[in-house]
Amino acid sequence: MTNTTKNYLIERGIKPSLQRIAIMDYLLKNRTHPSADEIYQALCESIPTLSKTTVYNTLKLFAQQGAALSLEIDEKNIRYDGDTSIHAHFRCKSCGEIIDLPVDQVNMVDPKHLEGFVITEISAFYKGLCDKCNHEGSLMQNKSIN
Amino acid sequence: MTNTTKNYLIERGIKPSLQRIAIMDYLLKNRTHPSADEIYQALCESIPTLSKTTVYNTLKLFAQQGAALSLEIDEKNIRYDGDTSIHAHFRCKSCGEIIDLPVDQVNMVDPKHLEGFVITEISAFYKGLCDKCNHEGSLMQNKSIN
Repeated sequence: MTNTTKNYLIERGIKPSLQRIAIMDYLLKNRTHPSADEIYQALCESIPTLSKTTVYNTLKLFAQQGAALSLEIDEKNIRYDGDTSIHAHFRCKSCGEIIDLPVDQVNMVDPKHLEGFVITEISAFYKGLCDKCNHEGSLMQNKSIN
Repeated sequence: MTNTTKNYLIERGIKPSLQRIAIMDYLLKNRTHPSADEIYQALCESIPTLSKTTVYNTLKLFAQQGAALSLEIDEKNIRYDGDTSIHAHFRCKSCGEIIDLPVDQVNMVDPKHLEGFVITEISAFYKGLCDKCNHEGSLMQNKSIN
């Protein structure tokens, strides 16, 4: 994985330091849309020289270079996604999980409204209750009725 | 406007205090997608008893009750929109302006992927360069070439 990740970074114009490779590796292996803090917590034991600032700056660089997506879907933290292919995200307001959604129709906006614009990023966020929380909510409601 | 705004808040289950009416009025009149801080700065002179905390809490309440949209489109601040009708947003990475975009296709995701889910919010964010900044950028590039 390390060599593949190293090449992945080089291809995107990112100098592949060991810390950068470890952070990118984590993002590619963990499709949970982690925050910078979660990544730091997961890696700080195996890389004692790692600082929170390095993790924050590295993720910012990854997003700038198109190596990862930065998701402003959570009010508290920016979340990161190693999957940069076109897809939408759903955040459950109950359990907080962020779920990937395949996109069938890339453009919600007629291109005529974007004449002269340069579009570098399109993101679609859905929020509500996931099927699990929705189901549990209905069960609880039924229990309180009976 | 004040009476209309008062009714607008009541209809959405919000007790219409004078400060809340002033904040909602500002949002309805200023379609610039302001942050809580910008609203505070605009109103604090005419309402000296207004605190930043009140503005933050009021906007959070407006978003919860569907009186305004909270937009997580800016990395630094949550921005607010008094226009709750379905539309997408474009943020220019150069000038920072947030522009409303009409939506032709509401759903980017096939409903079959959302079976069992409850969707309360869909937002679409476009980022890049607005036509003005794009045009200025091209002019500058041409100048530096000549």
